[in-house]
Amino acid sequence: RINGTRLWSTLMAMAEIGATPKGGVKRLTLTEVDKAGRQRFTEWCEALGLKVRVDAIGNMFARRDGRDPTRKPVLLGSHLDSQPTGGKFDGALGVIAGLEVMRTLNDLGITTEAPIELVNWTDEEGSRFGHSLMGSGVWAGVYTQDKVYGLKDLDGVTVGEALDSIGYKGEHPAKPFPADAYFELHIEQGPFLEREGKQIGIVTGAQAQVWYDAVITGQDAHAGTTPPSTRKDALVAAARVIAKVDEMMRARGDDGRGTVGRLQVFPNSCNVVPGEVRFSIEFRHPDGAEIEGIAKSFPAEVKALVEESGCSLELKELFVIAAQPFDKECVDLVRQAAARLGYPAREIISGAGHDAVYVARLIPTAMIFTPCKDGLSHNEAESILPEEAEVGCQVLFEAVVARANR
Amino acid sequence: RINGTRLWSTLMAMAEIGATPKGGVKRLTLTEVDKAGRQRFTEWCEALGLKVRVDAIGNMFARRDGRDPTRKPVLLGSHLDSQPTGGKFDGALGVIAGLEVMRTLNDLGITTEAPIELVNWTDEEGSRFGHSLMGSGVWAGVYTQDKVYGLKDLDGVTVGEALDSIGYKGEHPAKPFPADAYFELHIEQGPFLEREGKQIGIVTGAQAQVWYDAVITGQDAHAGTTPPSTRKDALVAAARVIAKVDEMMRARGDDGRGTVGRLQVFPNSCNVVPGEVRFSIEFRHPDGAEIEGIAKSFPAEVKALVEESGCSLELKELFVIAAQPFDKECVDLVRQAAARLGYPAREIISGAGHDAVYVARLIPTAMIFTPCKDGLSHNEAESILPEEAEVGCQVLFEAVVARANR
Ligand SMILES: NC(=O)NCCC(=O)O
Ligand SMILES: NC(=O)NCCC(=O)O
Repeated sequence: RINGTRLWSTLMAMAEIGATPKGGVKRLTLTEVDKAGRQRFTEWCEALGLKVRVDAIGNMFARRDGRDPTRKPVLLGSHLDSQPTGGKFDGALGVIAGLEVMRTLNDLGITTEAPIELVNWTDEEGSRFGHSLMGSGVWAGVYTQDKVYGLKDLDGVTVGEALDSIGYKGEHPAKPFPADAYFELHIEQGPFLEREGKQIGIVTGAQAQVWYDAVITGQDAHAGTTPPSTRKDALVAAARVIAKVDEMMRARGDDGRGTVGRLQVFPNSCNVVPGEVRFSIEFRHPDGAEIEGIAKSFPAEVKALVEESGCSLELKELFVIAAQPFDKECVDLVRQAAARLGYPAREIISGAGHDAVYVARLIPTAMIFTPCKDGLSHNEAESILPEEAEVGCQVLFEAVVARANR
Repeated sequence: RINGTRLWSTLMAMAEIGATPKGGVKRLTLTEVDKAGRQRFTEWCEALGLKVRVDAIGNMFARRDGRDPTRKPVLLGSHLDSQPTGGKFDGALGVIAGLEVMRTLNDLGITTEAPIELVNWTDEEGSRFGHSLMGSGVWAGVYTQDKVYGLKDLDGVTVGEALDSIGYKGEHPAKPFPADAYFELHIEQGPFLEREGKQIGIVTGAQAQVWYDAVITGQDAHAGTTPPSTRKDALVAAARVIAKVDEMMRARGDDGRGTVGRLQVFPNSCNVVPGEVRFSIEFRHPDGAEIEGIAKSFPAEVKALVEESGCSLELKELFVIAAQPFDKECVDLVRQAAARLGYPAREIISGAGHDAVYVARLIPTAMIFTPCKDGLSHNEAESILPEEAEVGCQVLFEAVVARANR
């Protein structure tokens, strides 16, 4: 069995890197804090005799050899980057639990048939450069490396520059290598497992998403002298769009998701009618057809809305992620492990995007969810119990070892 | 007569300090760029033999002695700070035209009866620290110096620190000294003079205003997993407030003004439901009773609106400026000068706030407006003709000299 105490104390050690006053974590991708987390992770891997290799987008792979050198490796992992005001477990749980799997294999002197590789994917969150699942997306060939290198954060720093500045533009090419399967443990980040008293979520797939970048252009003008009839207020127009996104979400009931999470106003001065607003928009739904429908109709609808306010809109579709089912056999390994161990479990569709979603396009993939307090995530108050981490890690261990030994 | 060519080239020289690529000016108050503008202004004054004194809030006074040492000085001036994407003339016209008045008096060897003092008020715009008319407000006793020293910009720098860092916390107390009258030349920043083909606006007063700081608190949450029913989206709530402010403005017809100019989202990440939004709100109206009515009813109305969205609101009234009539005698001097010079003129109420509004609480005050292209201001495209500047400056000269010699 895995060691729950060791797992928890390693999670807490990682949570110190970028710890925030309110008990959360700020470990934004490709910053000095992320670098510190990566270095810590490398030390832990090397202490187990695992060599870490880094690819050109900063994805990290720590390999434990198997008995049969002709077998493709089983991958497991998640991400160590966080939101600006993120929690201790989103991502870190999957990586640190993977480390605990490796430690337990060492402790028990087990050599699996296939090799096992523990992965830390770069920039899963998407909060700095606006593209979630970046490292896994490049690995899986969803984005080209060149396109991703050119993405900029709000200060104009590119992904390429950020990789260089923390020294994590690795020499291995950022592209898929032959691999047998991928398993990822993650907190649910939603309310269902906790509400139903389940310890394990058997993730059968992930919902569809579409993300946009929007720029509304109006005209800077004096707030005291410019009459209503001549105003072109980009923020008033943006407010209409925000209300519409919320309305579209609510029209789809409990499964609807629609969010404007990032927004900047220019020139951003109390007494200036805003001439420009830049913001993000994203929609999600478990039914891929809903997202396809939105992707078709939304651009024209929202353009009309903005133009009614006397402004103009530039809307760029950043990406569409189709609804992604996971691999039946791998999902069964998760189901069987939970059943064998006697943990209450249920099937679940992931509301969040995960690296597993892109990896699943190439190799058999499954995910394991564990509950989190009040379903709260992307929040410094994100919280889980040590037993919940332990249960999830034990299922991960069994599923990975079963796959590697089949 | 004043020298229109010299006036224009001095205006253009000042516009080089903080010039923006789009032809505007960014000379934010108490920055290094503002310091450069202040130093240039000092050199120009000293070249005329005028001594410049600086008070504790950074207001600058350049004195030209009169014949009668018992007479109180006549003040004239405006401000050299600008909006983040401001124009070349908002504020600078009044200061540089004041300088041209001094130069012309020197050229003509005129000694006025009363002394004349040219003023550059600190932070008229309010865009950095959120309080417009700051320097004149402290001088006139509307704000205490201590309160103002503690105001912070978005980076947390206080007014006191900013004054120290550019070396403009002067030794003279920031409080009123005996003065006879104040005259300020400014661009209209609105459409009326241009529309009616008038060269001079005889400003009879300024409209009323109320400014607020608002903070909406919701809950950071994951955009992919958080269902509509449990969201507390601070940006959706803010969008309702923005729409309401706009609606309140439009309900008051062409005289209505209501603006959210500054807004920040936290944590500002694409896939996080925003947990906090901070923003400014301001309303203006020529009829003071309208603003009094808003100040009474708006806080409760907007609180209810935000709470309907599941969030909470903290609303701080920053200040109310009552409608301010200017001094009849000083206004008449402007009217007479325009008539004598044969410039088409009309009476006008100022839509913008001006240092003259606070100064008028203490001493007889008047303002002169000149047209600006398309009524556009607080915009890099702000534009006036050299003849318009010359005409305004000539009226300023005549009104000031008439007052000083009466
Ligand atoms: N797991 C997680 O929070 N991923 C962030 C990417 C997204 O779902 O937007
Ligand atoms: N004149 C001018 O633009 N003043 C700024 C203060 C204000 O009216 O808000």
